[in-house]
Amino acid sequence: MEVTRQNFKDCLSTVYSAIEEADFLAIDGEFSGISDGPNVSALTNGLDTPEERYTKLKKHSMDFLMFQFGLCTFRYDSAKSKYITKPFNFYVFPKPFSRTSPDIKFICQSSSIDFLASQGFDFNKVFGHGIPYLNQDEEAQLREQTEERRNQHANGLGTPSFISPSSSKVPAHVPDEQKDYINKVVEKVERLFNGNGKTLNLDPCTGFQRKLIYQTLSWKFPKGLHVETLETEKKERYIQISKVDEEERKRREQQKLEKEQEELNNAVGFSRVIHAISKSGKLVVGHNMLLDVMHTIHQFYCPLPEVKSDPFSIPVVLLDTKLMASTQPFKELINNTSLAELEKQAKETPFKPPQVETAEGFPSYDTAQEQLHEAGYDAYITGLCFVSMANHLGKTTNFSSTFGRVWALFPFHLLFLMRIIDIPYLNITGPDLQPKRDHVLYVTFPKEWKTSDLYQLFSAFGNIQVSWIDDTSAFVSLSQTDQVQIAMNTSRYAESYKIQTYADYIQGKQQEKEKLGQP
Amino acid sequence: MEVTRQNFKDCLSTVYSAIEEADFLAIDGEFSGISDGPNVSALTNGLDTPEERYTKLKKHSMDFLMFQFGLCTFRYDSAKSKYITKPFNFYVFPKPFSRTSPDIKFICQSSSIDFLASQGFDFNKVFGHGIPYLNQDEEAQLREQTEERRNQHANGLGTPSFISPSSSKVPAHVPDEQKDYINKVVEKVERLFNGNGKTLNLDPCTGFQRKLIYQTLSWKFPKGLHVETLETEKKERYIQISKVDEEERKRREQQKLEKEQEELNNAVGFSRVIHAISKSGKLVVGHNMLLDVMHTIHQFYCPLPEVKSDPFSIPVVLLDTKLMASTQPFKELINNTSLAELEKQAKETPFKPPQVETAEGFPSYDTAQEQLHEAGYDAYITGLCFVSMANHLGKTTNFSSTFGRVWALFPFHLLFLMRIIDIPYLNITGPDLQPKRDHVLYVTFPKEWKTSDLYQLFSAFGNIQVSWIDDTSAFVSLSQTDQVQIAMNTSRYAESYKIQTYADYIQGKQQEKEKLGQP
Ligand SMILES: Nc1nc2c(ncn2[C@@H]2O[C@H](COP(=O)(O)OP(=O)(O)O)[C@@H](O)[C@H]2O)c(=O)[nH]1
Ligand SMILES: Nc1nc2c(ncn2[C@@H]2O[C@H](COP(=O)(O)OP(=O)(O)O)[C@@H](O)[C@H]2O)c(=O)[nH]1
Repeated sequence: MEVTRQNFKDCLSTVYSAIEEADFLAIDGEFSGISDGPNVSALTNGLDTPEERYTKLKKHSMDFLMFQFGLCTFRYDSAKSKYITKPFNFYVFPKPFSRTSPDIKFICQSSSIDFLASQGFDFNKVFGHGIPYLNQDEEAQLREQTEERRNQHANGLGTPSFISPSSSKVPAHVPDEQKDYINKVVEKVERLFNGNGKTLNLDPCTGFQRKLIYQTLSWKFPKGLHVETLETEKKERYIQISKVDEEERKRREQQKLEKEQEELNNAVGFSRVIHAISKSGKLVVGHNMLLDVMHTIHQFYCPLPEVKSDPFSIPVVLLDTKLMASTQPFKELINNTSLAELEKQAKETPFKPPQVETAEGFPSYDTAQEQLHEAGYDAYITGLCFVSMANHLGKTTNFSSTFGRVWALFPFHLLFLMRIIDIPYLNITGPDLQPKRDHVLYVTFPKEWKTSDLYQLFSAFGNIQVSWIDDTSAFVSLSQTDQVQIAMNTSRYAESYKIQTYADYIQGKQQEKEKLGQP
Repeated sequence: MEVTRQNFKDCLSTVYSAIEEADFLAIDGEFSGISDGPNVSALTNGLDTPEERYTKLKKHSMDFLMFQFGLCTFRYDSAKSKYITKPFNFYVFPKPFSRTSPDIKFICQSSSIDFLASQGFDFNKVFGHGIPYLNQDEEAQLREQTEERRNQHANGLGTPSFISPSSSKVPAHVPDEQKDYINKVVEKVERLFNGNGKTLNLDPCTGFQRKLIYQTLSWKFPKGLHVETLETEKKERYIQISKVDEEERKRREQQKLEKEQEELNNAVGFSRVIHAISKSGKLVVGHNMLLDVMHTIHQFYCPLPEVKSDPFSIPVVLLDTKLMASTQPFKELINNTSLAELEKQAKETPFKPPQVETAEGFPSYDTAQEQLHEAGYDAYITGLCFVSMANHLGKTTNFSSTFGRVWALFPFHLLFLMRIIDIPYLNITGPDLQPKRDHVLYVTFPKEWKTSDLYQLFSAFGNIQVSWIDDTSAFVSLSQTDQVQIAMNTSRYAESYKIQTYADYIQGKQQEKEKLGQP
């Protein structure tokens, strides 16, 4: 089901109940780019530590926009012995909800945009009809602002941007050039007060004039008037003044309150879906989901921890199908863990095709006719892969025992780490693996050097593995740890290049950090 | 005429001849945003100096993308006593043209994107079919790379990313784990060499393997082979090896050269239009065109000067219709200089509706059915406004004398300065006006203060004008210069706020800059 700003409100209860009844959820996101600094391969160095990878992604990926969010809910129907799926494809965009709301800037990376365009991605839908959202801080701030404006209004004052600490106790200070204008307004209002008419629409005017009008009227006519700022079709703001008795005034206040509440909910928008997922506490699967999880938290929920080791908890249970597919016992059965390939392999022997059915009223995806890189479709097939693999583990369709086996093998919150040689996953809420890197050297050299020069340099040490850091440094993994000392010795007098052990390199970086941390 | 990547090559000669025959050109651009830092009103402070404004725009606006460029050419047809117009609407996007080309990042501002979306802007056309471009530096770099690759290839070596300084003189150093693979390739090539076949396609392989193949083959078979890297439909790269005699080899080299040249031209793409405009040396009109001019230079031409005072020349003649409309004699005749309003007023008395006709084969715009914020349309009506105002000056349709009068009143290259109180324009290629700001005070205060507090503070000094800088500082212009000293005196013992004269403020900033400039 495609969800945009236009049908979001109508779909929300469908989304809520789909989440509520689900046994697990699958998610996927599409972004406007990946890295605003280093190229993608430098961003994902083969010997990053999980901490380093997290810090790099937080620094270089979070200013991109997640503009499509796919959610597919899976509910096991034991009568049918099938999973019933409800796929949603949300278009998301930070449309400013008012003149004073934050004007978000986000980055686009031309390669990512070009790739999505070539897949038929509909940018017009995102930018024209994307659902707005707020993270919890922004929501709290907006609630506070609304509250404040309401209180001020109750005191007969204008919009918050025009309140002065000094203005509530004295008559408005009207600058000379405005005196004429304000006097004319007061005359008009006096005529309204004494005449038969009920409302008076002033001509559009500046914000400063509106402030003066609010202040002057609340001073001169403390009772019996309702003053409100409205907008013309051309978005010009003007003031409407109505004569009201006390009952009418209360009714209007109530109406206004409800309208404000509604506007607030609209502004929170898509984040309400994320709140529902988070409250459900359910299993959320994704494929290679580290960036999806980080973007989802950052954009719709709360600021990401400064460093990975900061305490952080996640209210749902995360499981990464790419990690699952590349770990025992699946590692032997699956030779390509990319989502499209995994989906194909996970329905062939020794797996069984997952038994699924799209819920009534939802357009059903056809996996034969791949719609890859639409977030809703990707979430759907991620769920299919999970079901196949989970069933294979349980060798039974009995739901709870299958899940029990999954948990035994794949503890929660472990997210696949792209391209890291010796650490398969990052634990997003706890400590990470500490791989042994005794056989790794940190090498610096002139920028003219190529991979072949490193091969040549280390040719005496048999097979090596090169992980480029930037164009003057790389990690070189030797095949045997006992050769590290020999390599260090032979390099002692070299001038064009330098070698450090991995341990020394890490220690040096640590010291540098501490130095920077101290004043 | 709408121009995208798909019809660009076919349209180019039409564009060139339209520019060549034109009497003047009108341009307009649409951007993905305006300011990545301060909000728009802080970006355009009422008392910026032209130098400051330029620096702010360069710093905060240039990372946005100009993704639609409107060009409308105007040719005066004396037989018809009419201008014949040719409007073009170019969609522009920095599509990466190869694996190694720069991957441009650009910023989007949600308010700008939302505004364009509400006007029906077609983002899918931009991102899916935008014409690529390169500025002169990028073009030179690409030419150099192509040249280099050609030379290396002539020496029998692979793509530039796989050349090592040490590899041209010795046989390739093949790491152990690749030896088997390379030996098998050599066997296959030997069979090709001795057999009847003409070509051999190897299976797709890694870049490193391709490098080894290139090096090994050029060492073992220095003559009689043509080795080339091709791509499968799935974008996997593989090597094709062909047996060739000398003539065939030359023919292929020639073909390759032509293909490279074509690819280069494609990569330069839309910038070729800008080169043509620049070479034409013609009059280019725009409405409020400072940002358009800066973006055009920056994106398609060359780096912008670091500071405005750096020497810089512009090969065309720039004229800003917003500046024209807000200067004598038009100032009195036009009360709203926004493009849409100007267009309406410039065809009513005392102006005459401009006599124009769209050239054959071009879709004609109807000004009654406004298509504002499509760059091609905006360029078109900018030209109309210019014609009306120029005709009004000349009170004659005689072309050259009209233009003579325009130049007498509006020297070249003066661009309208948005919202600056006392300097109407910025001279993009020369020194700027130095307004007297003796009556201006620089005031700092607690961030709780509002405009009304400033009015109150200066209430003794009559009318004032406030130009906010940020939330703790503003410029306050007094109506009389002789009051400045009195205001300074009364403020001497104030604790909550501070006042400086404008001259002291500027001097302080200058000193700060000099301090930063020194080591
Ligand atoms: N000096 C040098 N630097 C390299 C070479 N290959 C890669 N690098 C550097 O390492 C970074 C990551 O390279 P790599 O993993 O090959 O990814 P790529 O940039 O996508 O080709 C690059 O951005 C370069 O700065 C090389 O052959 N020589
Ligand atoms: N303290 C304070 N700062 C203001 C006030 N009005 C504007 N500013 C500051 O000046 C900047 C420019 O303001 P303004 O020209 O009114 O434009 P706006 O931000 O679009 O309303 C704002 O971003 C604020 O930092 C005010 O009443 N009080």
